[in-house]
Amino acid sequence: MYMKVTAKSHSLQRAADFHVILPYHDGYPDGNPPYPTLYLLTGYSGNAEEILFTLPLRQMSALYGIAVVVPDGENLFYTDHPERATCMGQYAGDELVRITRRLFPCLSHRQDQTYIGGISMGGYGAVVLGLHYRNTFSRFALFSPSVEPDRLLSGEKQDVEGAVPASLFDSLLGGSEVYTTSRRHNPVRAVEACVAEGKPLPDIWMCCGEQDLLVGDSCSRFRETLLRAGANLLWESGPGGHDLVYWDRHLENAFRFLAGCV
Amino acid sequence: MYMKVTAKSHSLQRAADFHVILPYHDGYPDGNPPYPTLYLLTGYSGNAEEILFTLPLRQMSALYGIAVVVPDGENLFYTDHPERATCMGQYAGDELVRITRRLFPCLSHRQDQTYIGGISMGGYGAVVLGLHYRNTFSRFALFSPSVEPDRLLSGEKQDVEGAVPASLFDSLLGGSEVYTTSRRHNPVRAVEACVAEGKPLPDIWMCCGEQDLLVGDSCSRFRETLLRAGANLLWESGPGGHDLVYWDRHLENAFRFLAGCV
Amino acid sequence: MYMKVTAKSHSLQRAADFHVILPYHDGYPDGNPPYPTLYLLTGYSGNAEEILFTLPLRQMSALYGIAVVVPDGENLFYTDHPERATCMGQYAGDELVRITRRLFPCLSHRQDQTYIGGISMGGYGAVVLGLHYRNTFSRFALFSPSVEPDRLLSGEKQDVEGAVPASLFDSLLGGSEVYTTSRRHNPVRAVEACVAEGKPLPDIWMCCGEQDLLVGDSCSRFRETLLRAGANLLWESGPGGHDLVYWDRHLENAFRFLAGCV
Amino acid sequence: MYMKVTAKSHSLQRAADFHVILPYHDGYPDGNPPYPTLYLLTGYSGNAEEILFTLPLRQMSALYGIAVVVPDGENLFYTDHPERATCMGQYAGDELVRITRRLFPCLSHRQDQTYIGGISMGGYGAVVLGLHYRNTFSRFALFSPSVEPDRLLSGEKQDVEGAVPASLFDSLLGGSEVYTTSRRHNPVRAVEACVAEGKPLPDIWMCCGEQDLLVGDSCSRFRETLLRAGANLLWESGPGGHDLVYWDRHLENAFRFLAGCV
Repeated sequence: MYMKVTAKSHSLQRAADFHVILPYHDGYPDGNPPYPTLYLLTGYSGNAEEILFTLPLRQMSALYGIAVVVPDGENLFYTDHPERATCMGQYAGDELVRITRRLFPCLSHRQDQTYIGGISMGGYGAVVLGLHYRNTFSRFALFSPSVEPDRLLSGEKQDVEGAVPASLFDSLLGGSEVYTTSRRHNPVRAVEACVAEGKPLPDIWMCCGEQDLLVGDSCSRFRETLLRAGANLLWESGPGGHDLVYWDRHLENAFRFLAGCV
Repeated sequence: MYMKVTAKSHSLQRAADFHVILPYHDGYPDGNPPYPTLYLLTGYSGNAEEILFTLPLRQMSALYGIAVVVPDGENLFYTDHPERATCMGQYAGDELVRITRRLFPCLSHRQDQTYIGGISMGGYGAVVLGLHYRNTFSRFALFSPSVEPDRLLSGEKQDVEGAVPASLFDSLLGGSEVYTTSRRHNPVRAVEACVAEGKPLPDIWMCCGEQDLLVGDSCSRFRETLLRAGANLLWESGPGGHDLVYWDRHLENAFRFLAGCV
Repeated sequence: MYMKVTAKSHSLQRAADFHVILPYHDGYPDGNPPYPTLYLLTGYSGNAEEILFTLPLRQMSALYGIAVVVPDGENLFYTDHPERATCMGQYAGDELVRITRRLFPCLSHRQDQTYIGGISMGGYGAVVLGLHYRNTFSRFALFSPSVEPDRLLSGEKQDVEGAVPASLFDSLLGGSEVYTTSRRHNPVRAVEACVAEGKPLPDIWMCCGEQDLLVGDSCSRFRETLLRAGANLLWESGPGGHDLVYWDRHLENAFRFLAGCV
Repeated sequence: MYMKVTAKSHSLQRAADFHVILPYHDGYPDGNPPYPTLYLLTGYSGNAEEILFTLPLRQMSALYGIAVVVPDGENLFYTDHPERATCMGQYAGDELVRITRRLFPCLSHRQDQTYIGGISMGGYGAVVLGLHYRNTFSRFALFSPSVEPDRLLSGEKQDVEGAVPASLFDSLLGGSEVYTTSRRHNPVRAVEACVAEGKPLPDIWMCCGEQDLLVGDSCSRFRETLLRAGANLLWESGPGGHDLVYWDRHLENAFRFLAGCV
């Protein structure tokens, strides 16, 4: 069951589209609602429809009984800019959950059945939003997440294919002064804050290809951070670059993790 | 709030799209669900999207607090052909109601808040399906309904602009022998059967333009049938042909009727 | 003929949707391509689909033989922010024209057959982009354009329904220092620059409702500016507010103007 | 580049949606048009959007420089029923080619660059339409084609999962009397007629899974027919059933064949 929804968002002050896949094929649920739900965030330069056309999310949803909600990310690194009336983080991490739960009561309201994930920039968003709204989400599925936007956007990676303009670091993430200490923007600070407060970290599945020049080193370092913090981490690598072929190949493992099969 | 839904239908044995408008603008209902709901059927040669792009249904929905569901009709005159695995009548009049109510619990389940309507061929469908599934619908909104398909499809009207091939009368409606006595296909027989069984007729709003060469005479005759049967009928005519300009002009009156404002 | 297109934009560095209406109903053009084309920009808080669902653009397109292209505007006031990799002005005023002309050779490449228009914030965009890319567009259709964003966003209008956050003036338009002299952002400066360079102003159709509290005074002042500058201006007012009901009522007049019927 | 198009079809007498993928990612072609084009037909119970969401056609298109056009098939076995105003074969095999070529001049008009393919019922359609309109198409890509609809629909297969109602054989294909000798409906007769007239058979790629209970035997027999007729056939089997997992796994080989890489 597939739906494209257009709803006015308060966080964005405008109409936004999102896509919902419910885990059954015909008009009648054959599983038992409420359904566990994955909020899946897109990467830089992509949009939601592209992900739906590229990854077999419908099959995965039906196979593992997990609803999937995919909003557009619009290259904003899931940041909040109230002065521009554009709070994409608040939208994707909070408002979208509330809209979809109200609209589709068949989606689970329980934290242990609500997951967040994302690809590349969306993986970054999943970490920082998932930890910021930590009472909402219990599991993360991170596909080659760009968890070090300071390096990704600092010029260091500007020659790598798929590079993102360095100026975004200042204009979206507030520059290094803000970023260094921000638990809203900096995944490492977010993890540390969680630990310092004695709050449990979510269960995390993360994959990154061995040939990923864009975020491979960042993922390795973040993996160390997570392990040091005592996170329950399931890590996958294997051959592959920063591309849909790699993510396609690892998609089912993410759903197996979310469904508790591993 | 607007949604396009793709769901597998048992009646059609395939995936079918339908469109849902909920009566509020942003992601949060500001009215009080459950919402009264209009199932609106499209005419010959049209599809659902065309109606949504052509008539201001979203404004009407928000203004009058009525949800609107629009399926595709596919030129089938809302007939059932199980031998072709294509039961469009059963789909539009029954399965679609069940799918949408299950998917969106904010839609009212009460008969007195569930309406059926349609344009041209869809108006015909609204009459015959509305009377066939008479425990589901309480009000009809009929825009220039082609309530005499026997005449429309008999060759008599083949020269009028917008004419529909005469062969459909045999291939879809079973020809005159079947049609004459069929309370499933013949609106007059359906009304008579309802009266004979002592069941109340629904409240009906019907409009037809004074220059409507295609169904103007049929609507006049059906109006007489309804009045003789004691139906609670609200009739509108006025200048106009069998076209969207006319239906656009009368759309708000239909919603006023459905909302109980008249 | 209607199409929804998803294409990667260089100006936005991501996939963006736009909608194309070609001026014929079936699969085969019955008019004579190339078609005159209107690029129509949406207002604050709206998106392209909403406009398509709300205004009868398909009928107008077919009736007047004019193709219509509608992109999403995303509340950005059609500004360019290369540091955020988001040049919405460049996209809507230039890249979109090039993409659509390449994709659909049936669209006219001639300036005298290429028009720009918009609603509210989109009307503002039409003026500043239309004058910035002045060799592309020959006619403007402005529906209650917010041609004084400095006042609209200055706090003065913050109590009016439909108000837009004042902070956008600084974050999107660069604040008053930049705005006062900017011919890219300030419609009055753009008109003056056009006149100073001895370039002809485009033909302009503009409407604004008598009860429009949001931009009514701005439109009046801009009307004076245009008349002083010697513009060929067709002005309409009449009863109505800053809403779709008003724009719907004046839509056909805009197409009559674009088609050269007035 | 992806587009969803809604156009009125003469063959169907109504608006129909189809999807077009052009072989480049952003708004500007980076390859050299005109592009070779695959018309890909969907199977029973599926629709076009489902295929687009399920198989990575966009990646294949970009990788192999081949445009892909996908219409809805509506369970009609690509037959023509003018008496029902529903000529789905004529639409998919002829009108759609003409509409898309006119709309998108970047699609090749050359037979040696125009291909037809399909999945299951769509593979059947590809064979019979591809041979019926033999001057249009030069290569076929057949995914588990149901090339023996007489057996598939005869009751013999009614217990297999994915079975299609037997009554369709009479209602759509005219029953065995018509079918036995029909070169429009019977793939074997179509091949024989082609050979008898001394016309060259197209190049054919066909796959079918070793565990395909629905059409496995039919594909084997058709393979023999093609080899006896001297067709240039590329055949693939391997483990797998009559499902998307199998077709996904063999998709790239089909594109390699169409692109002349094998």
